[in-house]
Amino acid sequence: MPGIPLSVLITGANRGLGLELVRQMAEGPSPIRHLLACCRDPDGPNSQALQDLAKRHPEVVTVIPLDVTDLGSILRCSQWVGSLVGAGGLNLLINNAAILTKDTMQTASPQDMLAAFNTNALGPFNLTKTLLPHLRTAAAASETAAMSCSKAAVINIGSFMSSINRTSQGYGSQPAFSYRVSKAALHMLTVCAARDFRQSEILFAVLHPGWVKSAMGGERAVMEASESARRLIHVMFSLTEEQNGAFLNNEGAPLPW
Amino acid sequence: MPGIPLSVLITGANRGLGLELVRQMAEGPSPIRHLLACCRDPDGPNSQALQDLAKRHPEVVTVIPLDVTDLGSILRCSQWVGSLVGAGGLNLLINNAAILTKDTMQTASPQDMLAAFNTNALGPFNLTKTLLPHLRTAAAASETAAMSCSKAAVINIGSFMSSINRTSQGYGSQPAFSYRVSKAALHMLTVCAARDFRQSEILFAVLHPGWVKSAMGGERAVMEASESARRLIHVMFSLTEEQNGAFLNNEGAPLPW
Ligand SMILES: NC(=O)c1ccc[n+]([C@@H]2O[C@H](COP(=O)([O-])OP(=O)(O)OC[C@H]3O[C@@H](n4cnc5c(N)ncnc54)[C@H](OP(=O)(O)O)[C@@H]3O)[C@@H](O)[C@H]2O)c1
Ligand SMILES: NC(=O)c1ccc[n+]([C@@H]2O[C@H](COP(=O)([O-])OP(=O)(O)OC[C@H]3O[C@@H](n4cnc5c(N)ncnc54)[C@H](OP(=O)(O)O)[C@@H]3O)[C@@H](O)[C@H]2O)c1
Repeated sequence: MPGIPLSVLITGANRGLGLELVRQMAEGPSPIRHLLACCRDPDGPNSQALQDLAKRHPEVVTVIPLDVTDLGSILRCSQWVGSLVGAGGLNLLINNAAILTKDTMQTASPQDMLAAFNTNALGPFNLTKTLLPHLRTAAAASETAAMSCSKAAVINIGSFMSSINRTSQGYGSQPAFSYRVSKAALHMLTVCAARDFRQSEILFAVLHPGWVKSAMGGERAVMEASESARRLIHVMFSLTEEQNGAFLNNEGAPLPW
Repeated sequence: MPGIPLSVLITGANRGLGLELVRQMAEGPSPIRHLLACCRDPDGPNSQALQDLAKRHPEVVTVIPLDVTDLGSILRCSQWVGSLVGAGGLNLLINNAAILTKDTMQTASPQDMLAAFNTNALGPFNLTKTLLPHLRTAAAASETAAMSCSKAAVINIGSFMSSINRTSQGYGSQPAFSYRVSKAALHMLTVCAARDFRQSEILFAVLHPGWVKSAMGGERAVMEASESARRLIHVMFSLTEEQNGAFLNNEGAPLPW
């Protein structure tokens, strides 16, 4: 394994997959030094489990308010991150927050399309750009030459549902039109970013978590969030330069775009 | 060939590829009955060539004002279309209008990202949905059973530059970050639409025009707009049910998403 990052920021960390990622990183054998667990409404009822977790690991987990569709919120978050990670920078950003509406082209409104694009693609774009100074600091501070999540990386949680190649198969039973369109944009964004930031030695990849039991995945999903998080952490911490710009499943195998 | 459509609407018809499509359809051996040539600013200097063309073919070419980012403009356009095509409906919609900024992830602003998404993906979404009644009318009025551009079809002009599979190759010399992201969204939109409207017998496909000399393609491009338009018309008028949801080049060969 290329190693464990010292600092990790996760969006949408209050429930579902995001919460499990925080939990396992906080309670794993090699705990992260700074776990920045971001969520929209830290004091709301949906953030209680995250707050409890943060209370159990006060040295590691910091809960930070962040709405990824709000540039002001992103800027405030970035300042907070800077004051926490300091000269070590931010090693790993996980763009996990997302929304899904069960719509089709007939039922999706222009507002649905913009909401999905703003949360699922523009949010990761704005957050990544705003956190760049901290990612660059981490890349420069790292003692290893090769790209990895312990040096500097951005992991965008994508979806097999947004594989353009595979859409004609699954669309009938799970249309999610606005979601698929927005995540395809996120996939393209990641491939471009992998090129744009190669010189800066910041690794970019898209990971598909599997079909996971959560508010989004529903009860019929095939995998617990804890199992998906376990696999994703293993894949992330194993990523090398070879996988820069890749689209991988939760076992690290490449998926078709 | 499955046949020639009776009515065709083209966006961005005042210059570049759009203008050539109108010219060749108006002056081709089997002229279209209704050519609805849409552009943002029909009375502006960039629309003079289109106005001249319309004057030479007053029975066939109607110039209609249309800004694809403006819902009001789309609604007015649709009313006009309805009054022109009547009970025959609209056979073919070509979403051709687009913008390209030479940006990277570093230089693109949130506004650039939204402008590209609004013009290149949300515009085609809104226009297609608004024109659906006329497309459905055409599908119902058609005497043939199989899907084709002479029955009812939506052709989205995509781009090989927005093939996620190929982006890592060409990105270095032609980044166009916001464009690539928005057109990847358009590609996904088309694949979903092909499923959503299969029952309605409306065909959807993405066509890549080639690298074409125009304001967007630049002087170094390899093909005249007239040659690209000639090829695209041939491909469009040859499309069958088999190609519903396909991504094809200007010779009708499939491209990777
Ligand atoms: N579940 C699956 O089967 C599956 C499959 C493929 C991909 N994925 C992807 O996996 C990731 C996690 O999904 P999940 O299943 O854990 O979904 P989830 O249970 O619905 O959780 C979504 C999370 O995103 C947050 N969020 C939404 N909009 C936000 C915004 N504007 N700002 C900040 N946070 C926001 C939510 O916060 P609130 O509590 O404030 O709403 C919540 O924490 C997503 O990217 C999803 O697309 C999931
Ligand atoms: N040229 C190439 O090499 C190339 C390669 C691949 C794909 N394409 C695609 O081919 C299509 C045509 O490109 P082109 O080369 O002809 O480009 P172009 O010469 O730049 O023309 C773009 C057209 O889109 C119109 N447009 C832009 N924004 C609009 C809006 N909001 N509402 C209505 N119309 C709008 C422009 O109108 P105004 O005059 O009012 O600005 C113009 O008519 C585009 O979809 C492009 O992405 C081109």
